[in-house]
Amino acid sequence: MTRPVKELLADRIRLLGPNVSTFYDDPVHFVKAEGVWLWDADGHRYLDCYNNVPHVGHCNPRVVDAICHQARTLNTHTRYLHEGILSYIEHLTTTMDTNLDTVILTCTGSEANDIALRMAEAMTGKRGIIATDATYHGNTSLVSQLSKSNIPTVGFGLGQYFRFVEAPDSYRHPDPDGTIFAAKVADQITALEEDGIGFACLVVCPYFINEGFPDHPDGWLKPVAEVVRKAGGLLICDEVQSGFGRIGSHMWAYEKMGVVPDVVVLGKPMANGHPVGGVVANGDVVTGFRKGYRYFNTFGGNPVSCAAAMAVLQEIDDKGLVANAYSVGEYARERMDDLAARHEVIGDVRGSGLIFGAEMVKDRATKVPASEFTDRVINAMRHRGIILSRLGRYKNTLKIRPPMPFSKENAGMLFDTLETVLSETRLNP
Amino acid sequence: MTRPVKELLADRIRLLGPNVSTFYDDPVHFVKAEGVWLWDADGHRYLDCYNNVPHVGHCNPRVVDAICHQARTLNTHTRYLHEGILSYIEHLTTTMDTNLDTVILTCTGSEANDIALRMAEAMTGKRGIIATDATYHGNTSLVSQLSKSNIPTVGFGLGQYFRFVEAPDSYRHPDPDGTIFAAKVADQITALEEDGIGFACLVVCPYFINEGFPDHPDGWLKPVAEVVRKAGGLLICDEVQSGFGRIGSHMWAYEKMGVVPDVVVLGKPMANGHPVGGVVANGDVVTGFRKGYRYFNTFGGNPVSCAAAMAVLQEIDDKGLVANAYSVGEYARERMDDLAARHEVIGDVRGSGLIFGAEMVKDRATKVPASEFTDRVINAMRHRGIILSRLGRYKNTLKIRPPMPFSKENAGMLFDTLETVLSETRLNP
Repeated sequence: MTRPVKELLADRIRLLGPNVSTFYDDPVHFVKAEGVWLWDADGHRYLDCYNNVPHVGHCNPRVVDAICHQARTLNTHTRYLHEGILSYIEHLTTTMDTNLDTVILTCTGSEANDIALRMAEAMTGKRGIIATDATYHGNTSLVSQLSKSNIPTVGFGLGQYFRFVEAPDSYRHPDPDGTIFAAKVADQITALEEDGIGFACLVVCPYFINEGFPDHPDGWLKPVAEVVRKAGGLLICDEVQSGFGRIGSHMWAYEKMGVVPDVVVLGKPMANGHPVGGVVANGDVVTGFRKGYRYFNTFGGNPVSCAAAMAVLQEIDDKGLVANAYSVGEYARERMDDLAARHEVIGDVRGSGLIFGAEMVKDRATKVPASEFTDRVINAMRHRGIILSRLGRYKNTLKIRPPMPFSKENAGMLFDTLETVLSETRLNP
Repeated sequence: MTRPVKELLADRIRLLGPNVSTFYDDPVHFVKAEGVWLWDADGHRYLDCYNNVPHVGHCNPRVVDAICHQARTLNTHTRYLHEGILSYIEHLTTTMDTNLDTVILTCTGSEANDIALRMAEAMTGKRGIIATDATYHGNTSLVSQLSKSNIPTVGFGLGQYFRFVEAPDSYRHPDPDGTIFAAKVADQITALEEDGIGFACLVVCPYFINEGFPDHPDGWLKPVAEVVRKAGGLLICDEVQSGFGRIGSHMWAYEKMGVVPDVVVLGKPMANGHPVGGVVANGDVVTGFRKGYRYFNTFGGNPVSCAAAMAVLQEIDDKGLVANAYSVGEYARERMDDLAARHEVIGDVRGSGLIFGAEMVKDRATKVPASEFTDRVINAMRHRGIILSRLGRYKNTLKIRPPMPFSKENAGMLFDTLETVLSETRLNP
């Protein structure tokens, strides 16, 4: 017995507050999910091309079994000894560069970024933080200030420590080897030093997913990493979206970008939706942070969270999900290129592995963003049973970021439907 | 096959960093738990008199079943509609004053306090925050500054916004009606206003548990609440430890203390160890916050978290756990008083419901804290299969805060063992 959507929306406003956004003009009420599929309360099935949190598939049996088994056995905290956290960190760190050997587990990516920024401050004694001007790294008081669009009208007055560089945009402002981006960061470092604040760190998603995942060649972050290190700062790579094999070519996007970060931030997909985040760094950095700041997280690294996170790593390995992301991603790029050949509105096709999409423009010559059109496409796709979204500075880039077991057949269904929707949606209605 | 503790400790240092504390001189390696019981890797059983996170009992079958059922069915986020979050908030808010009608769900109490402070700022336009000088409210960059002992040597420079008042201490500095505390808060408000910072909020645990749960009569917070409201600030009650019936006499400690807070912060016991926290406030306050700060929490309010949290509320109701906390708490106070009649080291017996303990002193006349003795008592108790801890400004107060199904029989075992340990432990070894 499910209630009408209208009633649910009224209850949301009453109980959650009046301005809590939902996806789509016509919000969806999901009641069941499995693998890459979701079902709404009316029994309609949707192909999930959006959700990265259920990384190894909605309701993945291995993850659910791990959670249930551990929840029935023991769930405490890290002030008692437990094997689960140790074996998980052992496994996680073997997937990274040997320098990245020590981990603090949290419950969210926001908590992890909040630690990462303080690590940079503890290690450098400086407070100047640089990020791009079109990104998002989380919701704590400190971390939310990394989102330029997010800087509150009121606020705890930390604005002076945050500096922003223009987000890379391979389509409109090519920077083929990353030297332009590196120079912009260098300018901000100079400005921070001149202001007496000093430079602590650069925080980036190494694949710049929120910025619209610009098309960068491998090794693109090398120049900026050099600039950061030369200035004595830390390079923080927020792999919340780009990590755990999402990009197909590598387990971590920083590898593709040719750098080894000082701090890696993890979140969303880490335990398939069980609230787990984490910070990976060298033992020296973790020690520096712990000396500067006392830190304990009650739920962080609890046995159930570790069991869920471990099951995700095992599932990635056993099912070959990184290789799957690579091959399905290649196929998706082909299908998208094919679509672009027939639809003028597609200005640029981008992506790697299972993060891919296309930038919609009103005119290929002027590259004017077709933001409102993209919104209508997404809503039309939702009504045809395909779940996806949009992102980027102009919110005109299709955001396709499905669970990792997404198959070529799933991609086929996505592109067949997209073809129909693009044919039916008018640029100027 | 379990590894020796020595090996686990070495791995902890290697993988978690060198200074991650464990409980007890001889850390415990738990592998199994049920209700109020824990078992270590050697098969020894321990009575849990400490852990409040497994609020309705370790591995509570109702909570575990709720988690498993929902994790097998659907786990998404609040940008889709879901009944679970609505029915949970509906149930939760019915346990509170009618003004407290709107909720933001998070993953931790730290995230919840981080929101609460920003709510105060959004509503008042001021940044001055007052807390006691012997407490702890969480671990984000902003919230960790509420812990005076925690203020980092380095830091993000918010120190000017935080002011501290001496924590209440009913044993050494009686303040029977709360007017002394209210006057101290009033002084800090004046200081904040004189400094041009202005007053945003007072944040307290209404039962001052970290401060050593001083013995206050019902209604004790009324005078300070008046001072806070008169100055235009918000009263934030952090019920992370004191809430969900822990104190026995009421569901929420703010009720016992005779006030209705503007914001209630929830955490630890909320979902029995599943990472859930939350902020409850009036709709106007939530709206004010959301206007000042964009806020979304990926894992916050997900269907599995809500199912776990709902099962906790149902279990509290069905098993009469608040009434149990009351009656077992009364019995525990009697047993503790009885113990105090025979042991000079017990200076003061305090508590309400299932948060109780005693302050250990070297001399009842001088009240000099027997901190190191208390530490030895706790370690001796651990070796006799009783898990508890210590707290308060001098860390000389036994901290007894068991799961809520704790019975009189359990309390009997605790006090029989404590009697033995107190008899065997020398004040000056």
